[in-house]
Amino acid sequence: MTNSRRKEWATSGIDLFLDFSRAAGPRLRARIENGFREAIRTGRLRRGTQLPPTRALAQDLGVSRGTLLEVYAQLAAEGWIAGRRGSSTVVAFDADPPRGATPIRAPSLVRWRFDLRPGRPDPSSFPRMEWLRALRRALASAPNEAFGYGSPQGQVSLRIELAGYLSRARGLHAVPDDLLITTGFTQGLGLVARSLAARGIRRTAMEEPSMHLHRSIVRAAGHELVLIPVDSDGMRVEQLEHGDGVGMVVLTPNRQHPTGATLSAPRRSRLLAWARATGTLIVEDDYDGEFRYDRRPIGPLQGLDPGVVVYGGTASKTLAPGVRIGWLVLPESIRQDGILQKELADWHNSTLEQLAFAEMLRTGAYDRHIRRMRLRYRRRRDTVILALTTNHPTLVVKGTEAGLNLLIPAPDASAEAAAIAAASAAGIGLDGLILGGYYESPGPAGLLVGYGATPQHAFRASVEALILALSDVVSDWPLLAKQT
Amino acid sequence: MTNSRRKEWATSGIDLFLDFSRAAGPRLRARIENGFREAIRTGRLRRGTQLPPTRALAQDLGVSRGTLLEVYAQLAAEGWIAGRRGSSTVVAFDADPPRGATPIRAPSLVRWRFDLRPGRPDPSSFPRMEWLRALRRALASAPNEAFGYGSPQGQVSLRIELAGYLSRARGLHAVPDDLLITTGFTQGLGLVARSLAARGIRRTAMEEPSMHLHRSIVRAAGHELVLIPVDSDGMRVEQLEHGDGVGMVVLTPNRQHPTGATLSAPRRSRLLAWARATGTLIVEDDYDGEFRYDRRPIGPLQGLDPGVVVYGGTASKTLAPGVRIGWLVLPESIRQDGILQKELADWHNSTLEQLAFAEMLRTGAYDRHIRRMRLRYRRRRDTVILALTTNHPTLVVKGTEAGLNLLIPAPDASAEAAAIAAASAAGIGLDGLILGGYYESPGPAGLLVGYGATPQHAFRASVEALILALSDVVSDWPLLAKQT
Repeated sequence: MTNSRRKEWATSGIDLFLDFSRAAGPRLRARIENGFREAIRTGRLRRGTQLPPTRALAQDLGVSRGTLLEVYAQLAAEGWIAGRRGSSTVVAFDADPPRGATPIRAPSLVRWRFDLRPGRPDPSSFPRMEWLRALRRALASAPNEAFGYGSPQGQVSLRIELAGYLSRARGLHAVPDDLLITTGFTQGLGLVARSLAARGIRRTAMEEPSMHLHRSIVRAAGHELVLIPVDSDGMRVEQLEHGDGVGMVVLTPNRQHPTGATLSAPRRSRLLAWARATGTLIVEDDYDGEFRYDRRPIGPLQGLDPGVVVYGGTASKTLAPGVRIGWLVLPESIRQDGILQKELADWHNSTLEQLAFAEMLRTGAYDRHIRRMRLRYRRRRDTVILALTTNHPTLVVKGTEAGLNLLIPAPDASAEAAAIAAASAAGIGLDGLILGGYYESPGPAGLLVGYGATPQHAFRASVEALILALSDVVSDWPLLAKQT
Repeated sequence: MTNSRRKEWATSGIDLFLDFSRAAGPRLRARIENGFREAIRTGRLRRGTQLPPTRALAQDLGVSRGTLLEVYAQLAAEGWIAGRRGSSTVVAFDADPPRGATPIRAPSLVRWRFDLRPGRPDPSSFPRMEWLRALRRALASAPNEAFGYGSPQGQVSLRIELAGYLSRARGLHAVPDDLLITTGFTQGLGLVARSLAARGIRRTAMEEPSMHLHRSIVRAAGHELVLIPVDSDGMRVEQLEHGDGVGMVVLTPNRQHPTGATLSAPRRSRLLAWARATGTLIVEDDYDGEFRYDRRPIGPLQGLDPGVVVYGGTASKTLAPGVRIGWLVLPESIRQDGILQKELADWHNSTLEQLAFAEMLRTGAYDRHIRRMRLRYRRRRDTVILALTTNHPTLVVKGTEAGLNLLIPAPDASAEAAAIAAASAAGIGLDGLILGGYYESPGPAGLLVGYGATPQHAFRASVEALILALSDVVSDWPLLAKQT
């Protein structure tokens, strides 16, 4: 028996969700009102969207029409909606424009028919049963102390399991003491940046292109950025040697985000030698190192020199972003500072989720899930590459060896924008090198196609829709050279 | 069937936990070694503690003695332990001293026989079954999107439930849009402080005494502090009017931490009028407002003037600190900044835990749990006050109307230290005004006695032990006046 009545009403292609379980009378009315306010505020219902007639909606929701008339009257009084005389009611309010000067790519609340944005795993593949089983076991076996304040560094049992996993599966040098449990790379990057800023180290090199959010996090911690270009061998690390006074370098050596390049072996050596010589801290963002398809996994930088590298990993791509578990492997020099920053940030992670994750590692359920997903994503990659190259043979497809997305260079910004607009019109979410803010200086254009987020049953359809949507716009793209 | 073999070995009154499930050979050995390293590093096994003989431990753990001999040899080689010839093996390593210049009260890893430190709820009362039920329901009903990246502001369904609860139970003015879901007040305070710092507001008034961790968080966000004294009517708000250029005030108006004073009605009015006139933001830390025993709940400041007050609440005291859920109610002026800072900090809370908490609110399980705990804590408070005043009639007991702890003024710092040492020798954890770093300038001494954290079955015994432990030290304390 469920107490929840959840209804969906398709209006102009946008779904309106109202959850008003166990409510009645004024509370029910307030819930429906809040549902509308939220949908309008967040832009799910856009200005001009036609609202369903009260009579039809009342039937759909199983509430009285009178309640809905009151709801509409209240929302109209507040300026959210407007009734057109003798006609339908429409949304009258413009959702907040994107936040001021910081165009962070917020989690979009638009519901795409197909979400092909990069860096997102398939949420429909989240192992609900395994996670519930792990939570149940953790709840049953946790000592009472587990519900009190815990260690900022993270639960010992999780650090033991994770150190074992990282050594075994990812080639890291890590013992439990080296680990700091975080809520994801987002948090970990901030902790490291603030640790260094507190020591007066406030100049950091990052890749260009790179994630806008990451650059914002480092800047918000008080750092100036030096942006280093990327080519098909990854970050051009020789440019670090120009003597810019950089004290920290953040990079994605195992699969450059978003270009997909792997940092070459000579550059790895050169970077580490330089870091050792100058006392610079390297922060290695290994955001999806588990998904490598065509050759054996690249060993992380950290495995080569644990003394100068902070390794950042996450369960956001392997389990789900909604779980919020990540980790740092910290060299001795920065460990206590990192733990202190974690304490200042949020004291520690949810203990129960740490114990559940430890349980999944312990039982092998995490490894099994990763193996299953690696196979699934590899097949998806093969499907999307075949479809693209067969149907649009002039397109170059890059960054295909690993990960959850690939890159299609575009001739210029307007071509990129046209392709993304065409996809959007077909209900497909894509990202672009320029649109997504990956570059700060003028940089090349390109489409980022993620094959992670689509539910399995819809994947083929999503690829077909993409091919169709791109047909008109990419047919006259020149064959672009291989460098980014 | 469980795959876990968990053993406990009592050594010198300290428990040694080794969890080495499903391991064998080198991995098993590594686990046991790590268990020891961790126990020594964290101070659970202190320098000089005698280790169990390998023969006895091998039997206890069900492993070969050879494995343990290797473990001991490795640990000795690393300097953790030392064998005394012809005698037993002892811990040779001193756990890290408290971190450098920042004496943050880290979660103690010492296992007290009775934990009477303040600000801690009873972890043995955590509603495991209700939480599991809520998690299960949330997992079963969550749409796939719930496992993707979510809104930094928090899940809509939780904000709807929480706004209803806060309005109904705590007298706040809050609609779902006003709420930002955090991982606790620790995080919320940092988000607000960084939001203001980004606008150039970097001068903040806080109470003295107050939590050291909170002062560190605000300072780490780049603020200078102005410390305002506290008396039996709470923060002396008139001192804010000296024109120090303060742009933010952080206080605990409903129950001053740690003195227990309530901010008087005239001071509430004066503070809010001043804040409105000067455009100052008030941050109200309502850390345990749910536990008020003798008179009706104090209405939070936020209910009086939602336009100038940020309200911070938490489930750390009502459910458990280990859950890591809190919330801010933000005035319009700071809302988008707060949400942006949350995104920069950790993107968003665990979605599943948000949905589970919403479920507990929706079904009334949260309300029921709070009612049950309020009654339990009130009885504990009565017990501890009766025992203290009966056995040590010269003691003054303050801050008794609400919350999870009370304050016993001490004549001076050395008397406070002696009492805490006597309690510690009896296996009782206490905190002190001076020892706990609540004051930065010289301030009065006092014992903070928490009656929250002890498991229910051990509560009477803990009070008896406390009375006994204090007998020798407090008998000659003069009767101290009522002001702090």
